[in-house]
Amino acid sequence: MAERWATSRGGLQGIDLHLDPAGPGLRRGLTDALRAAVRTGRLSPGTRLPSSRSLAGDLGIARNTVADAYADLVAEGWLTARQGSGTRVADRAVPAPPARPVSPGRAPGRLPYSLVPGSPDLASFPRAEWLKATRRALTAAPHDAFGYGDPRGRPELRTALADYLARVRGVRADPEHLVVCAGFAHGLRLLCDVLRARGAGTLAVESYGLDDHWDLVARAGLRTAPLPFDASGTRTEDPGEAGAVLLSPAHQFPLGGALRPERRAAVVDWARRTGGLILEDDYDGEFRYDRQPVGALQDLDPGHVVYLGTASKALAPGLRLGWMVLPPSVVPGVVAHGAGRSVGVVEQLALAEFLTSGAYDRHVRAARLRYRRRRDALVEALAERAPDVHVTGIAAGLHAVLRLPPGTEQTVVQAATWQGLAVLGLSRFRHPDADATPGDGLVVGYGTPPDHAWTGTLEALCRALP
Amino acid sequence: MAERWATSRGGLQGIDLHLDPAGPGLRRGLTDALRAAVRTGRLSPGTRLPSSRSLAGDLGIARNTVADAYADLVAEGWLTARQGSGTRVADRAVPAPPARPVSPGRAPGRLPYSLVPGSPDLASFPRAEWLKATRRALTAAPHDAFGYGDPRGRPELRTALADYLARVRGVRADPEHLVVCAGFAHGLRLLCDVLRARGAGTLAVESYGLDDHWDLVARAGLRTAPLPFDASGTRTEDPGEAGAVLLSPAHQFPLGGALRPERRAAVVDWARRTGGLILEDDYDGEFRYDRQPVGALQDLDPGHVVYLGTASKALAPGLRLGWMVLPPSVVPGVVAHGAGRSVGVVEQLALAEFLTSGAYDRHVRAARLRYRRRRDALVEALAERAPDVHVTGIAAGLHAVLRLPPGTEQTVVQAATWQGLAVLGLSRFRHPDADATPGDGLVVGYGTPPDHAWTGTLEALCRALP
Repeated sequence: MAERWATSRGGLQGIDLHLDPAGPGLRRGLTDALRAAVRTGRLSPGTRLPSSRSLAGDLGIARNTVADAYADLVAEGWLTARQGSGTRVADRAVPAPPARPVSPGRAPGRLPYSLVPGSPDLASFPRAEWLKATRRALTAAPHDAFGYGDPRGRPELRTALADYLARVRGVRADPEHLVVCAGFAHGLRLLCDVLRARGAGTLAVESYGLDDHWDLVARAGLRTAPLPFDASGTRTEDPGEAGAVLLSPAHQFPLGGALRPERRAAVVDWARRTGGLILEDDYDGEFRYDRQPVGALQDLDPGHVVYLGTASKALAPGLRLGWMVLPPSVVPGVVAHGAGRSVGVVEQLALAEFLTSGAYDRHVRAARLRYRRRRDALVEALAERAPDVHVTGIAAGLHAVLRLPPGTEQTVVQAATWQGLAVLGLSRFRHPDADATPGDGLVVGYGTPPDHAWTGTLEALCRALP
Repeated sequence: MAERWATSRGGLQGIDLHLDPAGPGLRRGLTDALRAAVRTGRLSPGTRLPSSRSLAGDLGIARNTVADAYADLVAEGWLTARQGSGTRVADRAVPAPPARPVSPGRAPGRLPYSLVPGSPDLASFPRAEWLKATRRALTAAPHDAFGYGDPRGRPELRTALADYLARVRGVRADPEHLVVCAGFAHGLRLLCDVLRARGAGTLAVESYGLDDHWDLVARAGLRTAPLPFDASGTRTEDPGEAGAVLLSPAHQFPLGGALRPERRAAVVDWARRTGGLILEDDYDGEFRYDRQPVGALQDLDPGHVVYLGTASKALAPGLRLGWMVLPPSVVPGVVAHGAGRSVGVVEQLALAEFLTSGAYDRHVRAARLRYRRRRDALVEALAERAPDVHVTGIAAGLHAVLRLPPGTEQTVVQAATWQGLAVLGLSRFRHPDADATPGDGLVVGYGTPPDHAWTGTLEALCRALP
């Protein structure tokens, strides 16, 4: 227990110094107590402190201890010591800002059910398998893996990803041109820097997408311009002045279609003709249910397409693990802007283990089966309970689009809230400059709920629908 | 084993299709083989493919399988199918770039010994303890930890860091204003974006420092301007037009001194007067040997100082774990520019465990003892073997500066190379625009070698010295 020592002399009048004179940290304790007194304003600027001899006598401790504590605080700028005028409290001490508690993980009033898209079922993250991969990674890593390393990321992971992407997504991935990043947003941010350095001022985007991405692009100093949109999807034949195009060809987000073959060809032709870049957002390419996955667009022309993927849908967004397969000419720019050195080596090596051991494939297979069952349950429930609602975009991914009768979107979103369900309307995903108006709808992220909440979530959705 | 099937008709003449007709992936195998043939140029653009009926007959497989494979490749853009003209190879197939092997972790010709500063002994990374912390983190984490989460980073880690930094470095750290980042460079990059948004065009830096940081600042669109430097260190009283100042007050890198009290005061006064920001790079604050650590400058005025720290010296750079304690007004800008969502949640939670369990303190204590012994051995060896060399900057950190006789720096660095030792001259750390010329020297990172190489490294250094 710390005893209380009160001094009765000089500038320390009325200041309590909490010290344990028997402890090893006597000097430290005195330093801390004096610093606290200055910081909180109990010792005001300009106050002259007692001499080290008199304070030492007061406190019953060695004079050197006091002198050392004063010296520490002078070194830190709290006190000043001038020949002839003794030790004083420095002028620039400021009061501490009032402390606020850390906000809790769940905001108050958060709804019990959620179909907000963008996340897989977080409860199904394979913790035990991930720990196993981490153990193997930590055991096998060479010492120099813990250093700064290759700015593209660990070679073990780049090789494992190149194999995986070639096998599963048809990507032409040379590990030399594969760069690890901390998720899609990080990769997009790096690419914006590269695009600006190439002189691009505009990134063409789909008419429907994520405002988070558009905002990120704007903050990085580029304009976003939406591509025209018609009944067949995004029109890619003329991105205008844009230096690059951001597309989700395998599974448009959020509308859900695959980019039509002639439009895949058209955008590659545009890139070749103009030297533009295509950024391919393959955010959920592993999840396709009724036919073979649509292969990556990148394979058509690796010299003009940047392929972007992540572990966010197959595993979890919290891992912050993503990757880019780059045209060789883009690698130096991305590396110069920081890329792969942002990602922790233990998680990189754990993911490499996860991929090469087959755990990734097993996990995706099991997840695909579960999400497909959810999708089927969704379609079935809607057919029975809400026959006026047309479900689209169900061939793939972790979300579907529910087409609603005109003018009902806001009402339905509100009704869902009353049912305790968070769900987003389609209009929220429309680029502010887009001409397109595909009508009212809901974007239903059926991958989001944990298993135990799925039935309740579906029931809440059905109750909210017209 | 895959049998070889050769077709003898139409456009596939001479093309080997590697198929296992008994396998489950027949359609997939055919798709892959055709795609490979197009990609490698064996099937040239415009080539007409045999009808699905005739190829199926040729291969002895179902016609639907061929039709499906064609449809997949049309969807991917490799083939085109037009009414009346059959299925053809699309025009835009490009040859694959030649594959190059991933470069090995160690570049050929790398020297056996290294005293290049900036890294702790990577061989001493506490793998078993880190795995233990990861296990506890993975077990205890709530499901929603695996989601996108708070852009400042996990609350568990921010709280643990705030406690640690207050206790060990005297930082006034409210977890609300603490943001997790992926190391110092990542934090600096985010801060540059904030500074530009505040209208700053110049960041004042120390005359000696790291060119990597200056380059990063330049790429982020800011000029670096070196502060004057005299016998007492960096002069901080007038940073001129700069909107912010980057300093290493506890232990100047690489020269090794602590910023003098009146200069700490002066820079805080400057910041208050002009509304400028001080970026405090506390890169090795935990390692001080002969006296109490110098407390953080941030404590003098948390409203104008950004405190930056990392786990790179205490644990390992490969973890890519850093943190910033920010003035409240800077938090929104840093968060808007991406911050804490770049860092994997498993490593964030593992570090929180490491801190709260005391493993971090134990590891730092043991490391400090080992590095201090190395420093003592260095000083002793030099006193005996190279009495003309003056050692400075030895009170703290993982490196020292060896002052060399005028005009000998390049010769000594070259002589070290002949001894198999990588070591950097002091001139390499001088800002190109700095007036200062503190003479010839070596920056000796004695923390870098693994234990088993330490004696040999020291011996090589002594042999290289005049």
